[in-house]
Amino acid sequence: MRALHHFSLQPQSRRIRIQLREKKIDVDLVAERPWERREELLRLNPAGETPVLVEDGGLTVVGAQVIGEYLEEVYPESPLLGGDARARAETRRLVAWFDDKFEREVTRNLLHEKMLRRLYGQGGPDSGAIRAGKANIRIHLDYIAWLTERRNWLAGAQFSLADIAAAAQLSVIDYMGDVDWESFPEAKHWYARVKSRPSFRPILADTWPGTQPPPHYADLDF
Amino acid sequence: MRALHHFSLQPQSRRIRIQLREKKIDVDLVAERPWERREELLRLNPAGETPVLVEDGGLTVVGAQVIGEYLEEVYPESPLLGGDARARAETRRLVAWFDDKFEREVTRNLLHEKMLRRLYGQGGPDSGAIRAGKANIRIHLDYIAWLTERRNWLAGAQFSLADIAAAAQLSVIDYMGDVDWESFPEAKHWYARVKSRPSFRPILADTWPGTQPPPHYADLDF
Repeated sequence: MRALHHFSLQPQSRRIRIQLREKKIDVDLVAERPWERREELLRLNPAGETPVLVEDGGLTVVGAQVIGEYLEEVYPESPLLGGDARARAETRRLVAWFDDKFEREVTRNLLHEKMLRRLYGQGGPDSGAIRAGKANIRIHLDYIAWLTERRNWLAGAQFSLADIAAAAQLSVIDYMGDVDWESFPEAKHWYARVKSRPSFRPILADTWPGTQPPPHYADLDF
Repeated sequence: MRALHHFSLQPQSRRIRIQLREKKIDVDLVAERPWERREELLRLNPAGETPVLVEDGGLTVVGAQVIGEYLEEVYPESPLLGGDARARAETRRLVAWFDDKFEREVTRNLLHEKMLRRLYGQGGPDSGAIRAGKANIRIHLDYIAWLTERRNWLAGAQFSLADIAAAAQLSVIDYMGDVDWESFPEAKHWYARVKSRPSFRPILADTWPGTQPPPHYADLDF
């Protein structure tokens, strides 16, 4: 059976799980704790990082960006990249925006400082980084509002990998209670639409030992 | 005329210039200094980053990863991604390896500390980061050696975007004289083969004001 090695708090792992569900591709989930540097994970991916997809025939596909493209190529039903080169360029631009820029400016400052540093044995959180993450997220929520005022979904008329990448990042920050949804009603409205998709439900049901998300986290009418 | 907004010291800009040449696509080069946050660049890419490709019809494609995919889709001659899904997954894995992991572990520690911090007005270099970059590059040169002992080019039998991404990163580090080629003869041999391609020549001819690469930098028989 096809297997996805993932880390449930990692936005890139979440976005592949959502994409697989959207495309109705069955997969066994293998939970990884990347900081443990488990031998099997290192064998599959010398970088020691999740997500890693292992196909039935043994083909190993490494990293969210690569798995994302691979799934669109090999399983063309329910396409999530866009219909022409222009649409695909816009979808990919926004996927990179959330995978790279949001990750660097928000997720590393909040998720990494508040939860991952301890797991990776790197000591306690840096309060300056947390403040920066909380300031930076406002710019991204404004950008989501700007986009959704002009388009049905982030990259255009159709639900796409851009919505998945953005919602996967935000879901992790929301798990920690760090999204001020009330100040960004358009972004909240867009996120509620993503949340209500069946593909998103398993993500919202995940919890991490010793932590608890805020009450609105899994609530579809938050 | 098609235009590429680039920053000549940035590996991602270099890799798109090489890809364009490999595919024999003509382009006007527009030199950017991203730290100046020029209004036209911000209008083309709200992230303010290079590279940005602007097609004749006005279509704007942003970021090396997105431009790389776009060019392979729209200009299928001289394909650089690989012939089937397995080959493309391997090429993309290695492109991400060099774009993300090499960039984070080596280029940010060397290029950013030694040259970019000053340009971005962030003060002088951090000697600890420079030491880390010089230690990390050895792991990557070993990995290139390991790959080229098993394959003709990094991702397989054919020259691909993986070779371009790796050589673009290394060319910037080599410009600063920070690659100990003599200790890594297999990596050196592979790099000499990339360097000798006509697509690489314009990169090697570039210099940055107030700096000078070591004598071997542009030498094809270094």
